[in-house]
Amino acid sequence: MNKTDLITLAHGNGGRHMRELVDQLFSKKLSNPLLDTSVDACHLQLDSPDICFTTDGFTVKPLEFPGGTIGSLAIHGTVNDLAVSGATPKYLSLNAFIEEGMPFEQLERILDDMAQAAQACNVQIVTGDTKVLPVHEASGVYFATTGIGLYNPDFNLGMDKIRPGDKILVNGSIGDHGTAVMLAREQYGLSGRLESDSASVYPFTHALSKLEGVRFMRDPTRGGLATVSVEITRQAKLGCYLHSTHIPIKPQVESVCEILGYDPYYLACEGRVIAIIDAQQADQALSLWQQLAGGEDAAIIGEITEQPRVILETELGGQRVLDELEDDPLPRIC
Amino acid sequence: MNKTDLITLAHGNGGRHMRELVDQLFSKKLSNPLLDTSVDACHLQLDSPDICFTTDGFTVKPLEFPGGTIGSLAIHGTVNDLAVSGATPKYLSLNAFIEEGMPFEQLERILDDMAQAAQACNVQIVTGDTKVLPVHEASGVYFATTGIGLYNPDFNLGMDKIRPGDKILVNGSIGDHGTAVMLAREQYGLSGRLESDSASVYPFTHALSKLEGVRFMRDPTRGGLATVSVEITRQAKLGCYLHSTHIPIKPQVESVCEILGYDPYYLACEGRVIAIIDAQQADQALSLWQQLAGGEDAAIIGEITEQPRVILETELGGQRVLDELEDDPLPRIC
Repeated sequence: MNKTDLITLAHGNGGRHMRELVDQLFSKKLSNPLLDTSVDACHLQLDSPDICFTTDGFTVKPLEFPGGTIGSLAIHGTVNDLAVSGATPKYLSLNAFIEEGMPFEQLERILDDMAQAAQACNVQIVTGDTKVLPVHEASGVYFATTGIGLYNPDFNLGMDKIRPGDKILVNGSIGDHGTAVMLAREQYGLSGRLESDSASVYPFTHALSKLEGVRFMRDPTRGGLATVSVEITRQAKLGCYLHSTHIPIKPQVESVCEILGYDPYYLACEGRVIAIIDAQQADQALSLWQQLAGGEDAAIIGEITEQPRVILETELGGQRVLDELEDDPLPRIC
Repeated sequence: MNKTDLITLAHGNGGRHMRELVDQLFSKKLSNPLLDTSVDACHLQLDSPDICFTTDGFTVKPLEFPGGTIGSLAIHGTVNDLAVSGATPKYLSLNAFIEEGMPFEQLERILDDMAQAAQACNVQIVTGDTKVLPVHEASGVYFATTGIGLYNPDFNLGMDKIRPGDKILVNGSIGDHGTAVMLAREQYGLSGRLESDSASVYPFTHALSKLEGVRFMRDPTRGGLATVSVEITRQAKLGCYLHSTHIPIKPQVESVCEILGYDPYYLACEGRVIAIIDAQQADQALSLWQQLAGGEDAAIIGEITEQPRVILETELGGQRVLDELEDDPLPRIC
């Protein structure tokens, strides 16, 4: 590969090379009427002063995996944090930390994927910053995206709204992202066709906005379904009773977990939402979700109980306690 | 050093260790009424829907240097982007990319310095995210901060407002940050007492809000004064005529530049603002700045000309053209 096809330290120095990187790659690929890379900040005229503000960092390895790239993931991750908060995602900022020696071509593919995801999610990247790091002081590229969303006043969400008897729903199969990324790492010697579930959950959260029985929503990313459930027990001081036979898990995910000794309940999802809903409205919510593209596997997977712990009812009717994740690091999964 | 005193990959896994890192370090150090690390997003009720939105990444090496740390720098950098846009900085988000093996103690010192800077700048960190990266896939810690500010309606700023004859002002000596960071790197075999200028420029921008002759402001970070001047020539299609004898440069900065062959006009500042002001109001602006703490060395350093290039008048009355920065990378200067 020609040396001019690689990112160099000069692309981070504030001069001509940096301007070219920003103008010819970032600005071109992520173009929208609000993005002006010649200024340091963006002027936004919002429809409301009542905003939802969130941020997320992205370090997934490999940078490109079946079903997505770190580019689309950086859009979906922040869009989903806004969506589960009951907001409509609107504007994003973008930070890129790029390793010296990264091929331009790969960065270009990743930004194309990012631009496509932003368009599909109806969000605009309106301001950004790039830094270039010497070899071995980064790995490929890391992103941070920070999002502004506008609250949908129909929602009244909070851990404190959860009541015993409420139902626990998920909009699709769990563990797809974590498994797809593991398979994409050659170190495991496995391969497969499984795709990450990386996607916006906004259509799913928006679909529930007219149901006043929606108590709480969260996307089960790092730590998966088990971690969201444990957080509910910690913060709402209530329990989660999960029925393993109702939890959608793809056969490939089950197989990989069996081979590698992972637990699917702790694997990251990037296009899933867990919703806690009044039992009276759970069937209606499920039906709304199942009508959406990608919602075919949505399911009611459990209910909220009094005792603050997470119980998984196994296939054979036994009970297993799901604890907080300890020493099972899968670094750079998201 | 005990192994439990170092950041491990488990601090990034979404489980107990991550919760402890966030609760016991980030949340505790950066505490404010709006920061709730148990939720993924922050609800902000702004005073106006007209906002300034900006982001910046920070990778400075070493992480601690005379006059600051990467923590205070991450506050000042984003606060300054808001300030020079004519906004009052209000809220920040924080991303941390931490290298496995980083000493807790150092991260703690850096977060203390960050918290102190945030308080001094009157901004609150209201949401955040942490990621842990394996050894050699980062270097210490990188931050990204994204800021929201509220516009001061008194300002009417823009490159397009600049006119020939306008004066160019700076609020203090240039190149301190770049030089202090270079000196802090053992590789140069130099040492010195020079401190970075890292600070908020908001008091300086705010002081000018009542002068309708303020056309444009920018903080000369990467690429320094020369790069801001070149940007003016590129975008406003006007020239900058700078008087070297009027530009405040500390003797230590001059010496280091002579020894290492650097040009102070291209060195990063992190607490300086360049303002372009109607000639009629330049003296008044200068006097406002000189009355402020840290503004003693403020100076009128040049004027805007018709011909779109940057000319530096040397001490002996000669002229030197300052071009766009080419191949002079000082990686990880900010």
